[in-house]
Amino acid sequence: MISFESDYINGVHPEILKRIIETNNDVEPGYGFDSHTKTAIAMIKEVCCAPDAEVFLATGGTQTNQLVISAVLKSYEGVVAAETGHVGVHEAGAIEYSGHKVLTLPQHEGKIDAGELKSYLETFYADGNHEHMVYPGMVYISHPTEYGSLYSKSELEAISRVCREYKIPLYLDGARLIYGITSSFTDLTLADIAKITDIFYIGGTKAGTLCGEAIVFTKKSMPEHFLTIAKQHGALLAKGRLPGVQFEALFTSGLYLNIGRHANEMKDKLLKILKSFDMKFFYESPTNQQFVIVENSFLRELEKEICVSFWEKYDENHTVVRFATSWSTTEDDLDQLEKILSLKFRNIEISTRNIEISKYRNIDNVTLQK
Amino acid sequence: MISFESDYINGVHPEILKRIIETNNDVEPGYGFDSHTKTAIAMIKEVCCAPDAEVFLATGGTQTNQLVISAVLKSYEGVVAAETGHVGVHEAGAIEYSGHKVLTLPQHEGKIDAGELKSYLETFYADGNHEHMVYPGMVYISHPTEYGSLYSKSELEAISRVCREYKIPLYLDGARLIYGITSSFTDLTLADIAKITDIFYIGGTKAGTLCGEAIVFTKKSMPEHFLTIAKQHGALLAKGRLPGVQFEALFTSGLYLNIGRHANEMKDKLLKILKSFDMKFFYESPTNQQFVIVENSFLRELEKEICVSFWEKYDENHTVVRFATSWSTTEDDLDQLEKILSLKFRNIEISTRNIEISKYRNIDNVTLQK
Amino acid sequence: MISFESDYINGVHPEILKRIIETNNDVEPGYGFDSHTKTAIAMIKEVCCAPDAEVFLATGGTQTNQLVISAVLKSYEGVVAAETGHVGVHEAGAIEYSGHKVLTLPQHEGKIDAGELKSYLETFYADGNHEHMVYPGMVYISHPTEYGSLYSKSELEAISRVCREYKIPLYLDGARLIYGITSSFTDLTLADIAKITDIFYIGGTKAGTLCGEAIVFTKKSMPEHFLTIAKQHGALLAKGRLPGVQFEALFTSGLYLNIGRHANEMKDKLLKILKSFDMKFFYESPTNQQFVIVENSFLRELEKEICVSFWEKYDENHTVVRFATSWSTTEDDLDQLEKILSLKFRNIEISTRNIEISKYRNIDNVTLQK
Amino acid sequence: MISFESDYINGVHPEILKRIIETNNDVEPGYGFDSHTKTAIAMIKEVCCAPDAEVFLATGGTQTNQLVISAVLKSYEGVVAAETGHVGVHEAGAIEYSGHKVLTLPQHEGKIDAGELKSYLETFYADGNHEHMVYPGMVYISHPTEYGSLYSKSELEAISRVCREYKIPLYLDGARLIYGITSSFTDLTLADIAKITDIFYIGGTKAGTLCGEAIVFTKKSMPEHFLTIAKQHGALLAKGRLPGVQFEALFTSGLYLNIGRHANEMKDKLLKILKSFDMKFFYESPTNQQFVIVENSFLRELEKEICVSFWEKYDENHTVVRFATSWSTTEDDLDQLEKILSLKFRNIEISTRNIEISKYRNIDNVTLQK
Repeated sequence: MISFESDYINGVHPEILKRIIETNNDVEPGYGFDSHTKTAIAMIKEVCCAPDAEVFLATGGTQTNQLVISAVLKSYEGVVAAETGHVGVHEAGAIEYSGHKVLTLPQHEGKIDAGELKSYLETFYADGNHEHMVYPGMVYISHPTEYGSLYSKSELEAISRVCREYKIPLYLDGARLIYGITSSFTDLTLADIAKITDIFYIGGTKAGTLCGEAIVFTKKSMPEHFLTIAKQHGALLAKGRLPGVQFEALFTSGLYLNIGRHANEMKDKLLKILKSFDMKFFYESPTNQQFVIVENSFLRELEKEICVSFWEKYDENHTVVRFATSWSTTEDDLDQLEKILSLKFRNIEISTRNIEISKYRNIDNVTLQK
Repeated sequence: MISFESDYINGVHPEILKRIIETNNDVEPGYGFDSHTKTAIAMIKEVCCAPDAEVFLATGGTQTNQLVISAVLKSYEGVVAAETGHVGVHEAGAIEYSGHKVLTLPQHEGKIDAGELKSYLETFYADGNHEHMVYPGMVYISHPTEYGSLYSKSELEAISRVCREYKIPLYLDGARLIYGITSSFTDLTLADIAKITDIFYIGGTKAGTLCGEAIVFTKKSMPEHFLTIAKQHGALLAKGRLPGVQFEALFTSGLYLNIGRHANEMKDKLLKILKSFDMKFFYESPTNQQFVIVENSFLRELEKEICVSFWEKYDENHTVVRFATSWSTTEDDLDQLEKILSLKFRNIEISTRNIEISKYRNIDNVTLQK
Repeated sequence: MISFESDYINGVHPEILKRIIETNNDVEPGYGFDSHTKTAIAMIKEVCCAPDAEVFLATGGTQTNQLVISAVLKSYEGVVAAETGHVGVHEAGAIEYSGHKVLTLPQHEGKIDAGELKSYLETFYADGNHEHMVYPGMVYISHPTEYGSLYSKSELEAISRVCREYKIPLYLDGARLIYGITSSFTDLTLADIAKITDIFYIGGTKAGTLCGEAIVFTKKSMPEHFLTIAKQHGALLAKGRLPGVQFEALFTSGLYLNIGRHANEMKDKLLKILKSFDMKFFYESPTNQQFVIVENSFLRELEKEICVSFWEKYDENHTVVRFATSWSTTEDDLDQLEKILSLKFRNIEISTRNIEISKYRNIDNVTLQK
Repeated sequence: MISFESDYINGVHPEILKRIIETNNDVEPGYGFDSHTKTAIAMIKEVCCAPDAEVFLATGGTQTNQLVISAVLKSYEGVVAAETGHVGVHEAGAIEYSGHKVLTLPQHEGKIDAGELKSYLETFYADGNHEHMVYPGMVYISHPTEYGSLYSKSELEAISRVCREYKIPLYLDGARLIYGITSSFTDLTLADIAKITDIFYIGGTKAGTLCGEAIVFTKKSMPEHFLTIAKQHGALLAKGRLPGVQFEALFTSGLYLNIGRHANEMKDKLLKILKSFDMKFFYESPTNQQFVIVENSFLRELEKEICVSFWEKYDENHTVVRFATSWSTTEDDLDQLEKILSLKFRNIEISTRNIEISKYRNIDNVTLQK
C-alpha cells in the first residue's frame, strides 16, 4: 500500500546507507569524538557560513528541544512559543519535565508574529507582578512550522530584532528544515538562518537519516559542558558515529538539497492531483506537508488503498488528514494516488468547505471548539 | 495612610495572637506532631463534616499548590486550570518547576465551565496523538477565584461529575475560602466543598493568620508518605506548632466565620461607597476583592491618600485597581475612603467605560490585546 | 515533663514575641518589602561587617538549602558535602528533587577536611571520564555541624582557599550558627564567616524564632531574580513581615548573642551533670547538642521522666541520645535532671564504652555496620 | 592501529547491517509500532521464557536507566546501588536530574551483597528519623558490573529475596548482558534473569548494534503510559524501526549468543597473552573487560601501537587500563597484540604489584585515596 503518512515511514536514504556500510569497520572513539562527527560538524559550519558556530549531534527532535531549551534557560525562565508549537503540544510535556513553562503566543498559520511578541514582552515587563511570573527566556519557532508554513526572511528578521532588543535567544526548530530551505516559496538560506537566529537544528530523521538532529549554536554560544548536560539527559550516544556518518553523507555533494528539492517537487505534483479532484485544503503549505479536509465516509474508503495521517477531527462529518512527501516519495506513488482517487471519486460525494486555520485544535491550550 | 491594598497587609488577628501568646511556653514536639496541630486537624474535620479527611498544614499558597499537585500527579500528567488560574500565572512556574504542565481552559469571570472541561477531555482522548501529549491528571479551581468570583453549588457539582467520570481528582485552591463561604452570594458550605471536591485547602495567610494553609484530602486520599514529600519540598516546618496554634484559634468559636463575615460586610459598605461615586467596575465580585477601572491621573491623586493594588493596565489612560477588605478593615477606614473620594472627585473628571472581563490580561497565555 | 529533646520545642523567645505584638497592627507591604525585613537586613549586614552582602529571609532550613543550592548550581553540577551533611541525609532528597547530586566527602566529627576536599577536586579533574560525571559546583558545610562540632578559623580558611582555587562557592549552613559563634571553643565571629564564606545562613528557628532563616550572599552574589526563584520554590511568604520582625528583634540589642550564650552556659552545666554520673559520650560537642550513649533499659526508665532525642542505635544494647539546650532551657530544668539521674542511677547499672564517631550511621551512604 | 579500547569502537555487526539494508525500503509506522519492533519484542519474550513480559526499545544506556528508574520510583524514593554503580558515577547525574537520589551500598568487585542490602533496609526502617530520609524504592545492579564481574544465580536470588521481602523492585542493568550470559563462569540464563529480577535491559550498543537497549518488564509491570513517559524523556525514536530491526537481527538464529561467545573466546585468548607477559591484573573478570595495572612509561610506549582505555590512576607511577573484546575483535588483533608486547617487553622493565579492587576510585562517593 502506498503511503503519504509521514516523512519518516522509510528507512534511510540510499546514499546515507552507503556511507554507513563503507565506514562500518572503521575503528572510532565514542561519544561524538569520531572523525565522521568532526567532518559533519565542519561541513555544517561551512554550509551555514558560520565559522564561529558550535555543533552537537543529538538523536531525536523532542530530545533536542528539551536539551537545548533546558540548557539555555535559567530556572525562572520559560520558552515563548506559538500555541501550536511542537514543544507545547506534542512532546508529552518534555519541557515542563525539565522544569520550564512554555509561554504561548497566538499562532498564524503556525507562526508567531514579531509585533505580538514585542507587545507580550512589553506587557510582561510593565506588569507590576512580573516578579511572580515566569520570565520569557527564549523564543522558540519551528521552520517549517507544524503546518508546513514558512517564515519569510523579513518576518524572521523582525522576530530576531525583538529578541535582541530584549536580550533573549531565538531558537529555530528545524525538524523539517531541509524542506523549508528548498521550497520555491522561501527566501531564506541556511546561512541566513545561521545569521538571524541564535540556535537552530537541522533535522535528520525527517530528512532521510535513521536518526539524528544537528544542533547549531550559531555564535559560539554552546552552553559550557554541553556534552555533560547531554549525558545527563541521556542524549549522548556511545556510538556517536551513527549520527556523525549520516550527517557527513547528508552534507556531501549537496545531498540534503537534493532530498529537499525532490520532496518539494513531489509535493507540487501532489498538490496538482489533489486540486484536480477539487479537494478542500485545511492548509496548503509551501513545504512537504499538506492538510486536507475529507468527509469521514470518503476517508474510510481512501484508507483501504493509501496511508495518510489523521490530523484532527474537523467537525462531526469531516476529518483533517495530512499528506506528506519525502525523499522516498516516487512519481509512481503519485500516479497510483491519482488512479485511486479517480476510482473513488466516481462513487463518493464530497462535501467540504474551506476554512481558515483555526485555534481550536491546539488541545493543550484548549481554546475549545465552540 | 489607610490601605485596601490586600488582605495580608496586617499581622495576625488578635484572637489568634492571643492563642500564640498563651501557648508559647508549652513544650511540644516538632514537625506537626504537636497537640495544637492535632486539635486543629480534628476541628477542621468536624467543621467539614469529613471524618475520613486527612489534613496537613503547610506554610503558604504557592508552596501548597506545588506540593499537592506534584504529589498527586503522575509524571506524564498535567493539571487543568482556567487560563487565569493562580497556578498558571502568578506562581513563577512553581508547577512546571515540579515537572508538570498547566493545561488551560477558557475562564469566565475567573471560573472554568463544566461543559468546556468535558469537551476538552473528550477531545483529548479522541485525539489519535494523545500519547504524545500531556495527560490531564487533575482539575484545579480557585474559590473564590483570582477575581473574587464564586462557583455555585450546581456549578461545582457539574465540574465534579466530569472529574469523576474521567477519574481525575478535583482540587480547590481556597486561599480566600473563608471569604467565599461567608459571602451572601454563596450556597456552598465547607461541608459541601469537602463532599464535592477531592482535595482543597483553607487559606490562613489571607484569613488572619501570619502564615499557614490547611490542606484537606477529603476522602482518605492523602498520598502515602506525604510528610516526607513535604520535607522534600522544604514545606515541613520544624515548629509545626506555628500553623497548628493559628488554625486551632481560627476554628475556635467560629472565628473563621466572624472574620469572613466582617470582611464581607466591609466589602458591602465599600461597594456602596464606590458606586455612590459612580466608579466603573472591571469586576464587581461577591467576595472581599473588588476590581475598579480608574483614570490614570485620578489614580495618581488617589495614591497620595490611600493604598490600592495595581492590577493591570486597562488601556492607555486607564488602570484596573483592586480594593480588598479583610479582618483588619474598619468602619473608620471606609469613612476615610468616602471622605477622600469626596474631596478628590470634586476636581478630577472621570472617564471610564464598563467592560466585560476579558482574556488579554492573562499574560502567560498571551492572548494579546487586539 | 522537662525536655532536652531539641532546640525547637518551645515557641518564640519572649523578646521576639514582644516585637511581633508591638508591630502587629502596622500596615506593611507583602513579600519581603516590609520595613521590618529591610531593617533586619540592614542589621545583619552591619553585624556581619558585610556592606556588600545581599540578604533574603526564608522560612525553614531544608527550604533554604534547596533554594540556595539549586539557585547557585548549574544543571550539571552537584554540591560537595560531608557524608553526614544534613543536605545528604535528613532532607528527604530535597537537593536531588531540585535535580542535583550530593557528592560526599568523609566526615571527621561531622566536618570535612580541606586536604581531602583538594584531593577530591584534583582527582576529579584528572579523571579522563569526568565529562561523564557530576561536576563539583559548590561546597556545603554546616557550622555547628549535625554533631555540634565547630570549624576553627584556620580550618574554615583552608577550605575557603581550596574553593577559591577551584572557583566554587563555599556555603555554610548555619541552622545553629548562634550557638557556634557564642561557644567558648570558637575563634570565628559572624564577620569572619561573612568574609571567609560566599554564602551562609543564620538560623532563626533553632535560635528562638517561630520560623525564619536569614540567607546571606556575602559578596553581592545573590543570583539574579532570586525573589522569583524563591517564589518558584514556594519559599516566598506573603507576610514577609513574619521573619522580618523576628530577625529585627533577634538583632536588636544583641539578643542573638544573649540567646546563644545562655544556651552554651546551660550546656556547660549539662555537661557537668552528665559527667558527674560518668555518662559515656558518643560525642561531646562545643555547642548546644550533646550525644550520649545509654543502655537501652536505662533509656526506657529515663524517658518516663525527661524527653531526649533518639539519635541512633549504637549496638544491640545501647542507644545514642541527644540532649539539646536552647534559649528556653532553665537552671531549674537542669536541677531536675540532676535529681532524676540521682534517683535512677541508684537502681540501674550502666554499661557503655567510649567510641570514636564512626561512619556507619550515615545511612544514605550506607557504609554498613560491620 | 589495533584497538581494545571498548566494545563500541566499530559500527554494527554485519548480520545486523544486512537486516537494516534488507528492510530499508519497507514502509513502516513510527514510534515503535513497526513490524520489526513487534517481532523483536516477541523474540525477546520467547528467549526469556517470559510470556508476560512487556518490552520497550530505547536508544542508549544512560537514557534507559533514567527512564526506567524515574518511571518506577515515587518522588520520595531513591535507587539503591553499589558505590561503583554506573547510575551513581558515570551518568553525569542523570538520575538526580530526574529528581531521585542514588543510595549507595559498598561494592565487592562491583557487586552488592544481599546481606548488606538487608542490613541497610532494616536499619533504614528502624531509624526514628526515616521520614526525613529518602526511601529505598528500587535496587539497581549491573550484570556484568562496571568491572566485568558476574553475580552467581544464588547471589542474584538472595538479592531478589530481600527485594521481595521489602516489596521493592530489582532492576538489572544489562548493558553488556550478552557477555555475561555467554561467559563460561556464569550459571545464569536470560530466562533465569527474567524470572529473578523485576526489570532488566539487554544492551544492544555494546553487543553489536548501532544503538538500542531492550527494556524488559518481566512481570506485566511496565508503568502505565510508558510510551508517553519515554516521549517526555526524549527517548521515543520517530524511526522506532532502527532499534527494532537491530534487535530482530540480534535475536535471529541466536546471533546474540554467537557475538557473546566470540567476545568471550577472544577474552580467553587475551588473558592468556597478558598473563604470558606476567601483566598484573587490577581485576581479572569473567567477561569481556579486563583491567590491568601498567607502569606509566610502559603505557606511553604501548599507546603508540594499540588503543586501550585509561581507567584510573593507580598510584604515582602506575595506571589502570582496560582491555575490551567484542564481536569485532579478531584473532589477528590478538596476534598483533602479542607481537607488540614481545617487542616492547624486551626494552621496558615492568614494575607492578597485585592489589585488591579498592574503594578509592569511586570518585562520586569520594572515599579518598589515603
